[in-house]
Amino acid sequence: MPRVFTPVDISQEEKEVRKDYFDRHTPRIVTAKTAKRNQKLKVKVIVGEHYEHPDVPEHYISYIQLWNRETFLAEAHFTPGMLGNQPSQVEVDFYIVPKQTMNLAAMAVCTNHGLWQSESMEIRVID
Amino acid sequence: MPRVFTPVDISQEEKEVRKDYFDRHTPRIVTAKTAKRNQKLKVKVIVGEHYEHPDVPEHYISYIQLWNRETFLAEAHFTPGMLGNQPSQVEVDFYIVPKQTMNLAAMAVCTNHGLWQSESMEIRVID
Amino acid sequence: MPRVFTPVDISQEEKEVRKDYFDRHTPRIVTAKTAKRNQKLKVKVIVGEHYEHPDVPEHYISYIQLWNRETFLAEAHFTPGMLGNQPSQVEVDFYIVPKQTMNLAAMAVCTNHGLWQSESMEIRVID
Amino acid sequence: MPRVFTPVDISQEEKEVRKDYFDRHTPRIVTAKTAKRNQKLKVKVIVGEHYEHPDVPEHYISYIQLWNRETFLAEAHFTPGMLGNQPSQVEVDFYIVPKQTMNLAAMAVCTNHGLWQSESMEIRVID
Repeated sequence: MPRVFTPVDISQEEKEVRKDYFDRHTPRIVTAKTAKRNQKLKVKVIVGEHYEHPDVPEHYISYIQLWNRETFLAEAHFTPGMLGNQPSQVEVDFYIVPKQTMNLAAMAVCTNHGLWQSESMEIRVID
Repeated sequence: MPRVFTPVDISQEEKEVRKDYFDRHTPRIVTAKTAKRNQKLKVKVIVGEHYEHPDVPEHYISYIQLWNRETFLAEAHFTPGMLGNQPSQVEVDFYIVPKQTMNLAAMAVCTNHGLWQSESMEIRVID
Repeated sequence: MPRVFTPVDISQEEKEVRKDYFDRHTPRIVTAKTAKRNQKLKVKVIVGEHYEHPDVPEHYISYIQLWNRETFLAEAHFTPGMLGNQPSQVEVDFYIVPKQTMNLAAMAVCTNHGLWQSESMEIRVID
Repeated sequence: MPRVFTPVDISQEEKEVRKDYFDRHTPRIVTAKTAKRNQKLKVKVIVGEHYEHPDVPEHYISYIQLWNRETFLAEAHFTPGMLGNQPSQVEVDFYIVPKQTMNLAAMAVCTNHGLWQSESMEIRVID
C-alpha cells in the first residue's frame, strides 16, 4: 500500500525547509462544524494553506477525494494546466446532505509526492 | 458512441411532461462571463435548474466533467446517498485559472438516462 | 461540448500524414462478437492499431471509457510514465457479464488532442 | 482518513464467518514476478479469491487502483450491473512498462465496506 502522509507529520516537523513541503501537499477541509439535517452543505477541500502547489505536466495534484469515515463520497480528477501552469492552491467544492453526524476526511494525490490525508473533521448535525 | 442529449432538445420540447425530464438531467455552467487573466475563477456546474434529480443507488448522477473546447479539464465522480438519498440539484465547483478566452462545456452522466451536455459558455479574459 | 472525433473520419482521410494521427488516437474494442448469457466476458480496449501513442507528461491518454448504448459501464484513468515514457499502445481490459445483446462503444481522451470514439460493436448473447 | 483493511487482518482471522467477508473484499494482484525491462506487462487486479462480491446498486465495488510504492499509476471506476447484477469476482487488467524494479499494490473500495488493500508485490526487472 502506498505510504500515507499525515497532518501529524507536519506538526512534528521542525525543519523549516520541510514545512513548505508538507503544507503544500496536505488537503484541508473547509466547512461548517454544524449542519442542518437534510440541508445541502458545501464542503471545500483545498490543498496547501500557506504554500502553493505547481501545476505543470511533470508535477501536479491529480485527484482529491472526500470520505465520511469508511465511506467514499466523491472524487475530483484534475489535469495540469487547469490552473494556468502556475503555482496555486488546488481546490474543489463538493456538496453533501448530512442526515446524521459525519466524520469527514480528504485525500489528495500529487503526481510526484504521493498520497496525503487531511485532518478528519466532525460535522455535528442538528435539527 | 453514446447518444448525447443536448440543451437544444429541451427548448424544442413542447410536452410539459418531458420538460421535467430534460431539465433534471442537463448540466448548467454558472460562472462569470469575464475573467481576469491569470486569476483563479470558480466554475460551478449544476445538474437541473427547476427540477431535482434522485440520489438513490438505482438512479443518480454518477459524474460531471468540465471541458474547454476539446480539452478535458476536470471530472468529479459521485456516490449515491451523498445528497441524503433525497432529490437534489447535484453540484460541484471547479477552480481554473484562465490565460486566454475559454469556451467551457460540462457533461453529466445519469446512471439511468445517459450522457448530457450543457450549453457551451464563453469566458472572455481581460487584463 | 467537445468535438468528438469518429472512426468514420479516419477512413475518409486520404492524406497519409493524417492517417497516423487518426489511428494513434482512435480506441478499438477487442472482444468476442458472441457471448454466453450470464458468463463473464473480457472486453479489451486499445488506443491505436498501427501507431503508438506517446506516454510523456505533456502528452498521454488520460482515460478510456466503456459504454453500452447510453449506459456508462466503466472508466480507467491513467498517469503518464505508466508505459515507461515510451510510445505504446494504451490498453485496458474490462470484464462484463452480458444478460442480453449489447452495443458497446469506447471513448478515449488524449491530453493534447481531445475526445475520440471507437466504432460501436454489437455483442450477440446466446444461451 | 478512512481505515484501511489489510491482507494481514485476514490471516489473523479465525472465525470462519469472517473469512468470507475479508476474502470477498481484498484485492489481489496477479502478474509475473519478473518482467523484461521496457516491455509491456499485464497486471490483473481481482477482488476476492474464493468468494464473489455482489454487483447490485446498493452494494458493489466502485473502484480499483494500482500503485507503485508512493506513485499512483491507474484507477478503474465501475458501475453496478456491469457484472450482470450477480455475485462475481471484480477484475480489471492494467498494462504497464517497467523500467526498474517496482513494488505494486492495489486498493479497492466497496460501497458498503470501505477501503481495502492488497498485499504488495515486487516485480523484478531484468534485461
